[in-house]
Amino acid sequence: MNTALAERRGRLVQKFGALQLDSLLVTHPADWYYLTGFTGDSGALVVSRRGTTLITDGRFIGQAKAETTGIAVAQQKGSLFESTGEFLAGSKARSTGFEATQVSVSQYQALRKAAGRGCKWKPVAGPVASLRMQKDARELVAMRRAAILAGRVMEDAIPLLKAGVREFEVAAEIEYQMRKRGASGPAFETIVAFGERAALPHARPTAKRLKKNEFVVLDLGVILAHYCSDITRTFYYGKAPERVRQWYKAVQDAQVAAIAAVKNGVLCGDVDAAARQVLEGQGLGKYFVHSTGHGLGLEVHEDPRIARGQKKRLEAGNVVTIEPGIYIDGVGGIRIEDDVAVHADRIEVLTRISRDLIEI
Amino acid sequence: MNTALAERRGRLVQKFGALQLDSLLVTHPADWYYLTGFTGDSGALVVSRRGTTLITDGRFIGQAKAETTGIAVAQQKGSLFESTGEFLAGSKARSTGFEATQVSVSQYQALRKAAGRGCKWKPVAGPVASLRMQKDARELVAMRRAAILAGRVMEDAIPLLKAGVREFEVAAEIEYQMRKRGASGPAFETIVAFGERAALPHARPTAKRLKKNEFVVLDLGVILAHYCSDITRTFYYGKAPERVRQWYKAVQDAQVAAIAAVKNGVLCGDVDAAARQVLEGQGLGKYFVHSTGHGLGLEVHEDPRIARGQKKRLEAGNVVTIEPGIYIDGVGGIRIEDDVAVHADRIEVLTRISRDLIEI
Repeated sequence: MNTALAERRGRLVQKFGALQLDSLLVTHPADWYYLTGFTGDSGALVVSRRGTTLITDGRFIGQAKAETTGIAVAQQKGSLFESTGEFLAGSKARSTGFEATQVSVSQYQALRKAAGRGCKWKPVAGPVASLRMQKDARELVAMRRAAILAGRVMEDAIPLLKAGVREFEVAAEIEYQMRKRGASGPAFETIVAFGERAALPHARPTAKRLKKNEFVVLDLGVILAHYCSDITRTFYYGKAPERVRQWYKAVQDAQVAAIAAVKNGVLCGDVDAAARQVLEGQGLGKYFVHSTGHGLGLEVHEDPRIARGQKKRLEAGNVVTIEPGIYIDGVGGIRIEDDVAVHADRIEVLTRISRDLIEI
Repeated sequence: MNTALAERRGRLVQKFGALQLDSLLVTHPADWYYLTGFTGDSGALVVSRRGTTLITDGRFIGQAKAETTGIAVAQQKGSLFESTGEFLAGSKARSTGFEATQVSVSQYQALRKAAGRGCKWKPVAGPVASLRMQKDARELVAMRRAAILAGRVMEDAIPLLKAGVREFEVAAEIEYQMRKRGASGPAFETIVAFGERAALPHARPTAKRLKKNEFVVLDLGVILAHYCSDITRTFYYGKAPERVRQWYKAVQDAQVAAIAAVKNGVLCGDVDAAARQVLEGQGLGKYFVHSTGHGLGLEVHEDPRIARGQKKRLEAGNVVTIEPGIYIDGVGGIRIEDDVAVHADRIEVLTRISRDLIEI
């Protein structure tokens, strides 16, 4: 029996009293992996005071039994949500929690119909996500490794940046290197954006070739032993003009200010404001079109969000990205992103490579 | 203006009368790409008789304007679903369709609240998915290319299968070759399963090394110019024992029977039954734990489903996988998968490489 996973399920069940639940339906793959170790793509997990049951289909039964301990595995008959509702009816669950953000309207209809009137449904907001925010020591080891690997892949990508190389060629090489170095894959579609395309915060790699005097934004992350990293660096292919240096320095200062604001107990909105104020002070506020960061872990976007006005407080065990950027249509963009862990009495920047402007 | 996309929106609006809608909310990325060309990750599309509006956040506004023609692009204020509800309230929509499978319970709550009582909500089942099932000539060209590329990548992978190679090394090399050959990436996480692990239909590549006398299942697909392919071949590393040859022949016969059953107008359930009957006739029915196939297009799993009892009929323009398989715990598994297009008067197998057992 994997005691770490059993403990997580125990901590989840401890919340049931306050939430007035006797069971919780978990339908999000990263959540069920966190609680049971099951890596399959399809299923529904019912956590109750009396035990935990994973319901899945024939493709995943063998895998589920091999990957989990201390839980029951049941094969669905008919549709997943019908079977899950029937299981709940049979288990005499009276009050079942579900994540309103994770269950579709049609799944909810199927569940309610199959579970019958004896089962009350209660929308709950992220009880598993809030456990997942607090990384334990073992998770932090995995996240350090994932962050360090992302930095190495970033450094190895610099020699690829030569005149004429295409964005998608650089992306292919980056993702290949991730896997050669042991990652199970990229944590998200690698962003390689040259020139004006750097003004698109979420640019997909295209056939565009690198030319002299262009921006290069590389935003990449790995999944290593299930945990994600996420790092961005901006380069200039050529000697950067003065105004580009000024912009770069403003983004760098914004990142320094936000990282300095990260602390156990601080409001997430205050971390965002620290970055935003620096850019606004330089007249660049209107070019900072996204939030400052997001939580990171089994998934590349997790709680907490480091965004304007967020009232949640950072806590020990949180890992977040800090990634201010500016995006100027028709010109280009600059983003600098690192991963930061919050400890009780200090912070730890997990990504370890230089943040200075590199001219190639 | 991209007339093909405008025509798709026109065909969608033509369904509004029968559905008693004046607007349709489209929240699924592949659906909005199909209708507008927008490749961003976040947004909501409102298609109405009076025109089409894409609502998205600051990260995607520039990209949305660059990628689309003939539609309005609006930047969300606050949350996406609040903004979308407010837009609908302002547009005087009276009856808005939404996909109950694509909208979460919490999104639905936010929409209803922001749109107000003047807006009636109608769950609709796949009006965009049903358009997407009928591939036009240009889409079929893209799908042929994607299928041929998958076959080439499969052939190139055979020399990698040597004693001691790890599953994840083969997967990394396969996905790298996809991208070197122009794919934007794999259509799904490449499956490389050796030995007993071949008994897991959805095995993720691990550090397991290939040994003599093991099964090898490779299941891979590319995304090329936005369209997916999906192909599986099973190899035997060594000389296959007689019972493995018999099993292989049974799966191959099941696939031949299912492909022979594919035809414009036939019930999807009958295609599934054709494969299942062959395997049942050989006493292998209980090892065929999934359905025979699925639609394929912009996504790797689309309508129609080729599954037991499916009453939908195949139509010209459909592209489906045909992929019977058997999975024997503790021993291994065999799956053979190809992509088949349905035309008015014939079928076309898009994947072109040999389906015979290869012993390496």
